[in-house]
Amino acid sequence: MSQSYRLSEIVGRFGGELLGDGNTMISRVATLVGAGPSDISFLASGKYRHHLAGSAAGSFILGKADRDATEKPRIICDNPYLYFAKVSDFLNPAPEIEPGIHGSAVVHRDSKIEKTSSIGPFCSIEKHVTIGKHCSIGASCFIGEGVEIGDNVRIYPGVKIYHGCIIGRNCIIHSGAVIGADGFGIAMDGESWFKIPQIGRVILGEDVEIGANTTIDRGALDDTIIGRGVKIDNQVQVAHNVVIGDHTAIAGCTGIAGSTRIGKYCKIGGSGMILGHLNITDHVDISAGTMITKSIDEAGAYTAIYPFAPHREWLRNSAKLRHLNELAERLREMEKAIESMGREKS
Amino acid sequence: MSQSYRLSEIVGRFGGELLGDGNTMISRVATLVGAGPSDISFLASGKYRHHLAGSAAGSFILGKADRDATEKPRIICDNPYLYFAKVSDFLNPAPEIEPGIHGSAVVHRDSKIEKTSSIGPFCSIEKHVTIGKHCSIGASCFIGEGVEIGDNVRIYPGVKIYHGCIIGRNCIIHSGAVIGADGFGIAMDGESWFKIPQIGRVILGEDVEIGANTTIDRGALDDTIIGRGVKIDNQVQVAHNVVIGDHTAIAGCTGIAGSTRIGKYCKIGGSGMILGHLNITDHVDISAGTMITKSIDEAGAYTAIYPFAPHREWLRNSAKLRHLNELAERLREMEKAIESMGREKS
Amino acid sequence: MSQSYRLSEIVGRFGGELLGDGNTMISRVATLVGAGPSDISFLASGKYRHHLAGSAAGSFILGKADRDATEKPRIICDNPYLYFAKVSDFLNPAPEIEPGIHGSAVVHRDSKIEKTSSIGPFCSIEKHVTIGKHCSIGASCFIGEGVEIGDNVRIYPGVKIYHGCIIGRNCIIHSGAVIGADGFGIAMDGESWFKIPQIGRVILGEDVEIGANTTIDRGALDDTIIGRGVKIDNQVQVAHNVVIGDHTAIAGCTGIAGSTRIGKYCKIGGSGMILGHLNITDHVDISAGTMITKSIDEAGAYTAIYPFAPHREWLRNSAKLRHLNELAERLREMEKAIESMGREKS
Repeated sequence: MSQSYRLSEIVGRFGGELLGDGNTMISRVATLVGAGPSDISFLASGKYRHHLAGSAAGSFILGKADRDATEKPRIICDNPYLYFAKVSDFLNPAPEIEPGIHGSAVVHRDSKIEKTSSIGPFCSIEKHVTIGKHCSIGASCFIGEGVEIGDNVRIYPGVKIYHGCIIGRNCIIHSGAVIGADGFGIAMDGESWFKIPQIGRVILGEDVEIGANTTIDRGALDDTIIGRGVKIDNQVQVAHNVVIGDHTAIAGCTGIAGSTRIGKYCKIGGSGMILGHLNITDHVDISAGTMITKSIDEAGAYTAIYPFAPHREWLRNSAKLRHLNELAERLREMEKAIESMGREKS
Repeated sequence: MSQSYRLSEIVGRFGGELLGDGNTMISRVATLVGAGPSDISFLASGKYRHHLAGSAAGSFILGKADRDATEKPRIICDNPYLYFAKVSDFLNPAPEIEPGIHGSAVVHRDSKIEKTSSIGPFCSIEKHVTIGKHCSIGASCFIGEGVEIGDNVRIYPGVKIYHGCIIGRNCIIHSGAVIGADGFGIAMDGESWFKIPQIGRVILGEDVEIGANTTIDRGALDDTIIGRGVKIDNQVQVAHNVVIGDHTAIAGCTGIAGSTRIGKYCKIGGSGMILGHLNITDHVDISAGTMITKSIDEAGAYTAIYPFAPHREWLRNSAKLRHLNELAERLREMEKAIESMGREKS
Repeated sequence: MSQSYRLSEIVGRFGGELLGDGNTMISRVATLVGAGPSDISFLASGKYRHHLAGSAAGSFILGKADRDATEKPRIICDNPYLYFAKVSDFLNPAPEIEPGIHGSAVVHRDSKIEKTSSIGPFCSIEKHVTIGKHCSIGASCFIGEGVEIGDNVRIYPGVKIYHGCIIGRNCIIHSGAVIGADGFGIAMDGESWFKIPQIGRVILGEDVEIGANTTIDRGALDDTIIGRGVKIDNQVQVAHNVVIGDHTAIAGCTGIAGSTRIGKYCKIGGSGMILGHLNITDHVDISAGTMITKSIDEAGAYTAIYPFAPHREWLRNSAKLRHLNELAERLREMEKAIESMGREKS
């Protein structure tokens, strides 16, 4: 049912050099292995070059180095991965929004929803909420009092946004995400914990994407701030008063503890953690599974991964790790012994 | 209110050797410590043998080695844990499904729901959905356009399934799980991220169980595939295009990055991570908390756990870990020094 | 719109020593940097002392050591952080509950809900549920059959509580939390997994707070028990049959495996894991990112963090970690060689 385009139309729209028959029709993007004759495929990494010859794709998006790697119709460009992304986006536009508020939704009369937006079934929208143009709010979402949502925001079913939070335009929020729950603020009072009110907000800048079941807590006093263009994967936990710089990307299952500031254009691998009250400068890449325990003021890549091994081998090595300091001291002793032997001889 | 059975009926149904009074009545399974006279308990591990003598249970399920460990009525079998599981399943059948669509549910007219299935309050079921026989869809679930759900599927309240996904028969999906959200696909375009459409699906095979708040992303181009009989615990993140082989079990809080293929009958401990684009062969056991950074082509157990220690001890040892390469070089230097001393002497 | 108070009223209510003009009005608490003239700020850690002089706050909460650190009106007390928490709580009371059941909620006639409680839109409340006084149940919550909820409980939108669980009074449960889903209980039966019924419950004591998207599984046979005053952050996974002692605090993204018992007054950092079937005694502090693999019977602080480093440095050191046992053996060989050299000489 998807529409077809001539390869020449694609090149007309997105640039690149066309080699072969520009009248080749494409209707889908596909992987080298999965593609058929009406699909366009791409080679973004040399790792998959061996799949190229056998691919049934009708045409390809290739980098300059792979210009002659096939005789089929192809587009040569600087960044085949990005080019593929743009073609895929062109061929797979987001579904159109059907404006209107579903009859089952509960919308407070003192809220303001633009007519071009769609509110799904079973949404609860509290008072003083504002929702911009061309937004889509999926089924069973909760939008708390005073929340402001910009234009072109897409919120999938089952998202909960606590009172007072601000969602910039073009944001995408996936199902199960919780924006603005209380930060984890407690103080010991005698023999029990006293809850510290969390009176800040969460502010998402423009073009932010938030993954499924991710949680971003409201600030304790000031706000939690997610910069423009930040992309956050599933099941990420962002604690209160965290500030994330523009265009930083954070992979799944990462935890960021309270009051930490992360710079712009950082890339944070999955399943890691960044402790609280740290400063991470711009352009820092943190490997997956890495725990960051101190501030980082120099751009670059940082890692802390215990190397995996067959279980028995790990057992032997990890047992020694418990005594590494002692091993180092014995080494120092020996160095002294050898040095003194050397002196005796001379 | 639960029904009672004679021990002899249990043995008649599930096998094993009956020792003692077959007319002993049982109505519940219970732990050795928690059991009363109308309960049957079990000993699955020698670790708990010391609880046997003092247990008030009326009867027991025991392995052959424990045949004479009590004089009370008992069933002797090869695998007491599995036997207990089957008895518990027999005594605790899943609640019956009350067929029908709750009056509050919003069901598109172009969907097809079998009459024997139950749709709970506040469910949103979009067009072209098909739901098989004897299914139970809990309150506030979202079932996106074109989703296919097989027979005997049990979906707990608040599950969100995005468009186009396929759920095999006998699957169980717990509350808060999100199936089919967009994978984390982005490409840097100048100074900001470009979102790559995620046009694959999620396909769950038969007999899959998905834990609470687990997320399984749809594929970017091809599908994300969860094999038959796979069991996934809570808060697991499965990224786009992952393929998980039949009967693999994955414990809670684990992350599996994009395009990784995991074999059959693997067991993956909790809170670990498997990086993307890897191949893990069949029958691999990965310890809890372990990060896998390379493909594994040999069955067996693999581990990467930093051994915990009292904080001060950890401080001393971890400080040395930062200089392990230097320590190794100093060791090499000494070996040379000693070797040359040995040569001088001879 | 918030109310204002004289500093002298605050001291009259919460104690401490007032220095400066007791008629100073305050209406908000704020950070040193964010405060304005009608705000009170505080200094809880020497780390932020340099912000004190430049703060525009009208008054301060200070410890005894900082008595003379400013000339502005100030309250001197033993624990400025706790004092601030109490003032913040006083200035920011929880929003009042509007009693009543929303017209859209589906409430079984055989449930009992106190008149002073509030049930939000799209809630499903099954039979034999009891809900105490002054409770607030947010939109789209599911409360399963037979659940008992005490007085003054606040449940945010989208919480799912499975059948039979018990929620003590004064509990707070944040959005997306799932209480009482099945534990991960499976037994291998030939070539596939057999599901073990999970027939225990979850019992939350009084004054428990549960973070957003946290999951607490029901017990397999006995109950999962969360003690009084326990505070659990977001995205924590508590497996079946875990018992957590009173007043323990658990930070985000932590996993606790099945049947583990944790003592009272423990503090567990984020993103860590505690394996199953362990006993952790009272007053244990576990660092963030730490995996606990054995029982702990002595109070104190425990850690297992791989120290992060620039990626290249990590590469060099981690390569050696794979051979640590061999390094230790070479060290031992050298010690022997040196010893024998020493003997030869003497």
